[in-house]
Amino acid sequence: MHVSSRPYCLSRRGATFLWGLRVPHDSSLTDTATAIAPVTAAGGDTVALDALRAIVGAAHVLTGEDAAPYLTDWRGRYVGQALAVVRPADTSQVAAVMKWCQQHTVPVVPQGGNTGLCGGATPDADGQAIVLSLRRMDVVRAIDPLNDTITVEAGCVLQAVRSAARDAGRLFPLSLAAEGSCCIGGNLATNAGGTQVLRYGNTRDLALGLEVVTAQGEIWNGLSGLRKDNTGYDLRDIFIGSEGTLGVITAATLKLFPLPVASCTAFLAFESLTAALAVLARARAGFGASLTGFEVMSRHCLQGVLRQFPDQRLPLSGESTQSPWFALLELSDSESEAHAQARFESILGDALEAGEAVDVAVAANGAQSRAMWHLRESIPLAELAYGKAIKHDISVPISRIGDFVATTNAAIQAAHPGVQHVIFGHLGDGNLHYNVSRAPDHTEAQLLALQDAVYAIVHASVVAHGGSISAEHGIGQLKRDQLPHYKDPVALLLMRRIKDALDPSGIMNPGKVLQA
Amino acid sequence: MHVSSRPYCLSRRGATFLWGLRVPHDSSLTDTATAIAPVTAAGGDTVALDALRAIVGAAHVLTGEDAAPYLTDWRGRYVGQALAVVRPADTSQVAAVMKWCQQHTVPVVPQGGNTGLCGGATPDADGQAIVLSLRRMDVVRAIDPLNDTITVEAGCVLQAVRSAARDAGRLFPLSLAAEGSCCIGGNLATNAGGTQVLRYGNTRDLALGLEVVTAQGEIWNGLSGLRKDNTGYDLRDIFIGSEGTLGVITAATLKLFPLPVASCTAFLAFESLTAALAVLARARAGFGASLTGFEVMSRHCLQGVLRQFPDQRLPLSGESTQSPWFALLELSDSESEAHAQARFESILGDALEAGEAVDVAVAANGAQSRAMWHLRESIPLAELAYGKAIKHDISVPISRIGDFVATTNAAIQAAHPGVQHVIFGHLGDGNLHYNVSRAPDHTEAQLLALQDAVYAIVHASVVAHGGSISAEHGIGQLKRDQLPHYKDPVALLLMRRIKDALDPSGIMNPGKVLQA
Repeated sequence: MHVSSRPYCLSRRGATFLWGLRVPHDSSLTDTATAIAPVTAAGGDTVALDALRAIVGAAHVLTGEDAAPYLTDWRGRYVGQALAVVRPADTSQVAAVMKWCQQHTVPVVPQGGNTGLCGGATPDADGQAIVLSLRRMDVVRAIDPLNDTITVEAGCVLQAVRSAARDAGRLFPLSLAAEGSCCIGGNLATNAGGTQVLRYGNTRDLALGLEVVTAQGEIWNGLSGLRKDNTGYDLRDIFIGSEGTLGVITAATLKLFPLPVASCTAFLAFESLTAALAVLARARAGFGASLTGFEVMSRHCLQGVLRQFPDQRLPLSGESTQSPWFALLELSDSESEAHAQARFESILGDALEAGEAVDVAVAANGAQSRAMWHLRESIPLAELAYGKAIKHDISVPISRIGDFVATTNAAIQAAHPGVQHVIFGHLGDGNLHYNVSRAPDHTEAQLLALQDAVYAIVHASVVAHGGSISAEHGIGQLKRDQLPHYKDPVALLLMRRIKDALDPSGIMNPGKVLQA
Repeated sequence: MHVSSRPYCLSRRGATFLWGLRVPHDSSLTDTATAIAPVTAAGGDTVALDALRAIVGAAHVLTGEDAAPYLTDWRGRYVGQALAVVRPADTSQVAAVMKWCQQHTVPVVPQGGNTGLCGGATPDADGQAIVLSLRRMDVVRAIDPLNDTITVEAGCVLQAVRSAARDAGRLFPLSLAAEGSCCIGGNLATNAGGTQVLRYGNTRDLALGLEVVTAQGEIWNGLSGLRKDNTGYDLRDIFIGSEGTLGVITAATLKLFPLPVASCTAFLAFESLTAALAVLARARAGFGASLTGFEVMSRHCLQGVLRQFPDQRLPLSGESTQSPWFALLELSDSESEAHAQARFESILGDALEAGEAVDVAVAANGAQSRAMWHLRESIPLAELAYGKAIKHDISVPISRIGDFVATTNAAIQAAHPGVQHVIFGHLGDGNLHYNVSRAPDHTEAQLLALQDAVYAIVHASVVAHGGSISAEHGIGQLKRDQLPHYKDPVALLLMRRIKDALDPSGIMNPGKVLQA
């Protein structure tokens, strides 16, 4: 592979230097609400606590100050109370806890790394529920490189799953902001997305089998490592993405992939979102399944990053830095670095010649690639420094993104002139973090006063464009009360029938996803 | 691309000529039972028939001889009776029929192309049900090349879906034996597999959204073209693969892909199944997502084809034709024919040098590629010519296939010496059609007398190896009564809870998948 000390541009406008450090992936925080003061577990019911201690051991039934970290989400947006935090060691303890809770109609809030963005793992304020923390269940039960599968318990931290796979010479592709602390059980419960969806799919697409403890305390052993199994209903996908409202995922068998041999990263500038979509189509056709990333960002996003982090630079120069849209494009190759490089240059060169991209900078080494990712990942931090924003995690069909952005921007400006649009996300998945930040002459409070009105404009536009009001973060508490306004009523009816069938006494994570 | 008039071998053992014609893909028939004489629809209940005629029109309520073709599966293995065959024109008619059936507790058997292999679309003998034929609903509602989606009604024939995609410059990859007559609604209802699963997944993996009429006659509009949507439970996958027992799939939005630029086909010989698995692993690592086919077959399969179809030839010669195992390997490239060819030769050459393959023939043109596929596809026909076989559609983890075949073969020989093993299938998916044919000195009847005993041996071995007794054909009537012996009991309990929740009066395709 051609390696140089600086990135090189395919454009006719010269190259520039790149540097920067890698930070965690953005998490698209939706932190516009006001936090309530934390309240710790009550721990008043000694009979109940004794019963739970008999199952998991006294050291693993937490109350008072010990319980506090489990009762609020990591952003401090939701704070609840609980009878106790219960930390089972294995699946049979989870089953025993669930049987006890079912018998006594005690609500259960499953929790993994507690890194969710919608309050799905935080109990409500009444203190009747237990928090069922799966963190102690962190065993990698099996790894089968020939079958390309790994079987892990729910409390395994995502990064540990990725490391175990890598140690076996395999890729577990799920990658997201919180990977150093989120647990795979939570990734499954929320069907987490991340930066590799374009090629490898959501968490749902990475799961082959599950072990689940039902609301009644039965253990379903569905830890299949099979690519094909048509023996009845797809139970796996009922639990994946159900946010702990139907049962407790205790383990999973996940797909592994060969490690890519080489990867290439480029930073592109466009005159319009339509042009970015043309390059996406070209890259999909030309790279096939080797296209692993296509992250788009508006100029406003990058201006914020450069203002907030003066050590970062755009890898482009001249006029193209004033383009309204940019993208980070990543190719992962199974052949060789030389092949990846040649292929990359050929197709991106075509995009330039066709006038779809106005400028392209190709990273010449890993450090330059990381610096490009760093720009992308710094957007939420830069946004936060400017003040809280009104945030949306939406998706629309890729063919309708251009119209969605144009019409929604126009509608927002018509209603609230001067607010700014901070738009970035996974263009290849049709998933945008479509955020609105304050007008330069407004305060944060003035912006936040518009929140419900802006939500209404954006979500109405999402529905009009055949989209989703939650592409990858889920519903939890945050969007529970909005869901009935935007979801097909028959879908809600079917969800309710399934909820009532699998959790008739309603003890599984009440008040999440569905209204009580 | 290098094009020659004959295939060339990468082995040191020379080349041979190839020819042949393409036939439909094998369907792995499981045709060992005896057909009952057909009975046509009774049509005796004029009040009911008048009500149904008022909904769909008199011409589309079939009874008597007109109904007969809908009352037996295409292999004549299952024959039922029905009140009538009802052929709605659109979703609203389906909803009206379902409401009427719900109100009068009339069972409904949804049917598409009637090409299933497990009797899932054939009514039972009591004549109380209607057959709801979706074939008139065959509109391609939309195609969106930029979003890579197509929206089709349930009655669209699979080949028509593939053609519509191709006309838009896109690939719809689902491909199977019956594609000229099966309907996409049935493919979805049975989560059909086929020859492209290794790269593109089962039908489940190809569906983004569904339109479903519930057992109560409500219409769920879930025709999403979104790659990401985390707004609640995954209703789509509950209906996919449920074989018409939970609701009626009336339309779907499906994923499209770029058409490959080039493809390569090779025929390989191996000294063992373990060696074939080593080449599979090498091909997965080297070709990545470009590996689109890896079909394995035992020598006995090919001997049968050559005996039955003397115009076919193995593309290999010399000693390697006596190898115990063979495979057909297919690469689909997004770059160029030259690249595909070079890459193919490099990796298969490595497999030869490493001693994993003993011989490799590479097709030099499309005709030779088709001839290789023709060998593979001729196996079921050759098998049938030899006499009915005891058939299994099983999957196990890829890492356990070698042990599964060795121990199962040994167990069968110990119990029933002399029977022959006809083993072929989708090695890359862990899916084998593990069939048993008569000993040379036995009659077909002698073999069929062993059927239940052989089923028991094979299915016990499947379960012991962490496998599935139905990899891609489903349960239907054929395996309904075996399922409780091999499926996790909690899984069956969960299935029953979902069935009772979505179809409490039990009118949806009764007697299929679950016992009454």
